[in-house]
Amino acid sequence: MISVVILGSGNVALQLIQAFLKIDTINLKQVYTRNQNDINTLNSSIETTNDISLLKKADITIIAVSDHAISSISSHIKNSFVVHTSGSVDMKSLNNIGRKGVFYPLQSFSKKKKVDFKNIPICLESETNEDLQKLEELVSLLQSKSYLLSSHQRKKIHVAAVFANNFSNHMYTIANEICEKYNIPFDILHPLIEETTNKIKIITPEKAQTGPAKRNDAETIENHLNLLSKKQQEIYLKITQSIQEYGKKL
Amino acid sequence: MISVVILGSGNVALQLIQAFLKIDTINLKQVYTRNQNDINTLNSSIETTNDISLLKKADITIIAVSDHAISSISSHIKNSFVVHTSGSVDMKSLNNIGRKGVFYPLQSFSKKKKVDFKNIPICLESETNEDLQKLEELVSLLQSKSYLLSSHQRKKIHVAAVFANNFSNHMYTIANEICEKYNIPFDILHPLIEETTNKIKIITPEKAQTGPAKRNDAETIENHLNLLSKKQQEIYLKITQSIQEYGKKL
Repeated sequence: MISVVILGSGNVALQLIQAFLKIDTINLKQVYTRNQNDINTLNSSIETTNDISLLKKADITIIAVSDHAISSISSHIKNSFVVHTSGSVDMKSLNNIGRKGVFYPLQSFSKKKKVDFKNIPICLESETNEDLQKLEELVSLLQSKSYLLSSHQRKKIHVAAVFANNFSNHMYTIANEICEKYNIPFDILHPLIEETTNKIKIITPEKAQTGPAKRNDAETIENHLNLLSKKQQEIYLKITQSIQEYGKKL
Repeated sequence: MISVVILGSGNVALQLIQAFLKIDTINLKQVYTRNQNDINTLNSSIETTNDISLLKKADITIIAVSDHAISSISSHIKNSFVVHTSGSVDMKSLNNIGRKGVFYPLQSFSKKKKVDFKNIPICLESETNEDLQKLEELVSLLQSKSYLLSSHQRKKIHVAAVFANNFSNHMYTIANEICEKYNIPFDILHPLIEETTNKIKIITPEKAQTGPAKRNDAETIENHLNLLSKKQQEIYLKITQSIQEYGKKL
């Protein structure tokens, strides 16, 4: 049995709360939030508080608030072991008097879509081996997958995730915009997108790269540019140029 | 039973040949290629020729060669119904004396990885309804999914596919480069990539967009830029700017 307290009611906090509630061997003792109704709508049996001086003791105290609020909120916590859930904040930014750590789930969270924690990567960091074992126990109860990453590595993976998630999603946005303009259903692209992401589980993305940029097909590139809006052209040219530069390196 | 002849021995041709061979109700009568050994290594029972004047008759004659060679090769074909498999070449570019059509499988083909044609989209175009029915029959024998697209629409979906496949793959390349530099295993990003592509099957990519660009988080953007190489910064800035412009439209 492992006891936890959570601070926050954003996407990460809500997903963690829902996951913890389903596991008998995790004791969610309390949630600190200024929106107590949000939490109690989720589950009326959760004990909540909006007074940080009333925070209960727990094996792990999890701060799941906005990046900029982590330092200040942590300075009010007297619990023995406090972690935050951010990809880009240093472990040392925690100002609690006790021991510090990081519990960063590398996944895209939204309020609407419930996340299955099974197999999702959780990046861990701590000051002592004992605390690391405690965090690994929590990861294993969630059936997630733990990765030991320094604060430095975690910031790097956070920016890598922006490319892999946010920026690839923007490529889909532009593809969808083209489809909508010419009355083509976007689902025609689903199998291609699926194949693209399946391939990079087997070979590196550099090796998986195909298309007119990769094969230096100037004629097709020219034809494509003629079909695009000015803003789309700018992105097309920039990424084409980048693919060609990477191609030279290999 | 439907009979086909294929011209070509590139990725698309090889994948089609392998798929056709597995289906009893498709009669692959002949393959025209200058690399007969390649085809016969695949399956020694396939009839091949490198003399286009010896091309056999078939219900559908499929030209699966490079875009720039389609026009010239088609002018030598006397068969009744000839289609090409290109996403970016006009149906009218076919110079055969008989009827014309298009059979464009919207998927990323490579020699190494066998494609499962089940459920993959095939974009069809033809001059007559009868020919369209013939193409739809072939699609249904492959258990693929047919979409009726004009040459104009097909060119648009071809460029949309470059964004959805080639450009999103380049985002993975940059993410992988960051991981390699800091000794982080790339597979830590697989669940995030999977979630990103699952989401856009349920909601539009515009609505699925998250990240610092979307929420105008200038501090995180600044921090990210400081972690990147000059080339990575250029891409990061360009796409961030584009996400913010799209955000304003919504």
